[in-house]
Amino acid sequence: MVVVVTGCAGFIGSNLADRLLQDGHHVTGIDNLCTGQRRFLENALKHSHFRLIEGDMLNLEGLTKWFRGADCVIHLAANADVRFGIEHPRKDLEQNTIATYNVLEAMRANGIKRIAFSSTGSVYGEATVIPTPEDAPFAVQTSLYGASKLAGEGLIAAYCEGFGLQAWIFRFVSILGERYTHGHVFDFYKQLKQDSSKLHVLGDGRQRKSYLYIQDCVDAMLLAMEKANDKVNVFNLGVDDYCVLNDSIGWITEALGVKPRLEYGGGDRGWIGDNPFIFLDTAKIRALGWKPKLSIREGIVKTVEFLQANEWVLETRG
Amino acid sequence: MVVVVTGCAGFIGSNLADRLLQDGHHVTGIDNLCTGQRRFLENALKHSHFRLIEGDMLNLEGLTKWFRGADCVIHLAANADVRFGIEHPRKDLEQNTIATYNVLEAMRANGIKRIAFSSTGSVYGEATVIPTPEDAPFAVQTSLYGASKLAGEGLIAAYCEGFGLQAWIFRFVSILGERYTHGHVFDFYKQLKQDSSKLHVLGDGRQRKSYLYIQDCVDAMLLAMEKANDKVNVFNLGVDDYCVLNDSIGWITEALGVKPRLEYGGGDRGWIGDNPFIFLDTAKIRALGWKPKLSIREGIVKTVEFLQANEWVLETRG
Repeated sequence: MVVVVTGCAGFIGSNLADRLLQDGHHVTGIDNLCTGQRRFLENALKHSHFRLIEGDMLNLEGLTKWFRGADCVIHLAANADVRFGIEHPRKDLEQNTIATYNVLEAMRANGIKRIAFSSTGSVYGEATVIPTPEDAPFAVQTSLYGASKLAGEGLIAAYCEGFGLQAWIFRFVSILGERYTHGHVFDFYKQLKQDSSKLHVLGDGRQRKSYLYIQDCVDAMLLAMEKANDKVNVFNLGVDDYCVLNDSIGWITEALGVKPRLEYGGGDRGWIGDNPFIFLDTAKIRALGWKPKLSIREGIVKTVEFLQANEWVLETRG
Repeated sequence: MVVVVTGCAGFIGSNLADRLLQDGHHVTGIDNLCTGQRRFLENALKHSHFRLIEGDMLNLEGLTKWFRGADCVIHLAANADVRFGIEHPRKDLEQNTIATYNVLEAMRANGIKRIAFSSTGSVYGEATVIPTPEDAPFAVQTSLYGASKLAGEGLIAAYCEGFGLQAWIFRFVSILGERYTHGHVFDFYKQLKQDSSKLHVLGDGRQRKSYLYIQDCVDAMLLAMEKANDKVNVFNLGVDDYCVLNDSIGWITEALGVKPRLEYGGGDRGWIGDNPFIFLDTAKIRALGWKPKLSIREGIVKTVEFLQANEWVLETRG
């Protein structure tokens, strides 16, 4: 199969590209290398079935050309920055909502019928049902990121109805593991590397969050695309558990062998629009036979190990 | 109060502008007069508290200037064409999603904190719970129009969280009454005027739909904005009832005194993405003390009377 992966130099994209190549597929990777890292594609670039296009998702003409001959698009390119959304609202609109529209139009122009999409558990806002299932009550959005992903989901579903596409929409918890360059483990590692005697923590440390290991995430996505066959297939992806931020701090500092003084920013959330409790019901994806191999703790430790072995990523924009 | 009404030359916008002026407010109306009609503003334009700006919602710089000094924005401007969405997908993206983003940015630039928004019952897709309450399960979108309105809702809610705005979001059933220029009563009237011996009906005539009379709609919107005080206030607006399309055909032909031969297009829906059963639970708005004064039948008859007295609207783009 010829698979387009948008955002292929990113955390999830590069891991997915490696897996698809390993499984014998041809991969066209598209990335503007704005937050994506060429070094994440070192393996892929050695592969004759891999083609990297350095291009932007706002270039509809380019996308239409680059998609030619593909069987399927896995659309991961996005502004994944939840926290700083209100500093640049246009970014979520352009890189997430309009980019998704462009992907759909480029697919339509090329007669490509299958799309997978990285959405987010943030679309549930501050969920009233926890663990939160895919058919939770309509939520009030609390972040521009979540709102832009929900807009992307809606566009994709409407194209499925209107133009006969088929979609797999994944609502992730935060993902951890190799090539992770963004989020609290990254921030803490960076702080502790600079000064291991103290650690500034956003919020009160009691925020409850769930995390999934990247290889488990890739497994789930590929399994769902193989086995689920509705017109629009929506899946939560996460582990059957959550941790509090303070647990995570304990695991990170233990792995690093440091004992910093903790300085809490205070309040029950890290930033405006932060959700103090994310925990998704994953019964639907588990019913297909998937289960995560790594616990949250194991995922966090793997992430710390990756950062230790790849400190160059600390200098990236994250 | 100084109120901006976007889409003020439209069906709902012009009725709302008249009411706001009558209630003593100052109204800045914005409309690109693409589907809006200057004739709908005949009354408003005589009023010293009314200002009409012929401008487009994609003009962010213009909006920022035109919003200056306003206390509140009622954002109704939209591509309201549900049926032909798949013929021009970019229209919903631009006129609905991006336009709403522009409204929010122009509000932010001017420090305006209150926004009302015309969303749609279409955001529920093919609802699994009927009558459908505001907190129905997350729906799969079935039209580009619904998807673009859901995107608008999400953006507005995220701005409320991120920038301290307050919002009233109205999910309408179809609205009927004076200045109606769009939908099945319009289509049928137009057909019957040309040839009263036959009527082409999309679908099988058994689609179940709900309609609300424009003055009841305006009452509900203003009441909600006065009484509901959450950060994000979402209200379904509709009557406590539905009709089947065939009932409506009976009322229309009776009002016109014609007996056409009915030719059905067939199938359980009128077009791709049409929803064969729309019926909203309106307990939430009723709890504020509102109830509609006109039944669906009365609203349809009023609409026929309006069209008879204003046949010039049949020549508009609808």
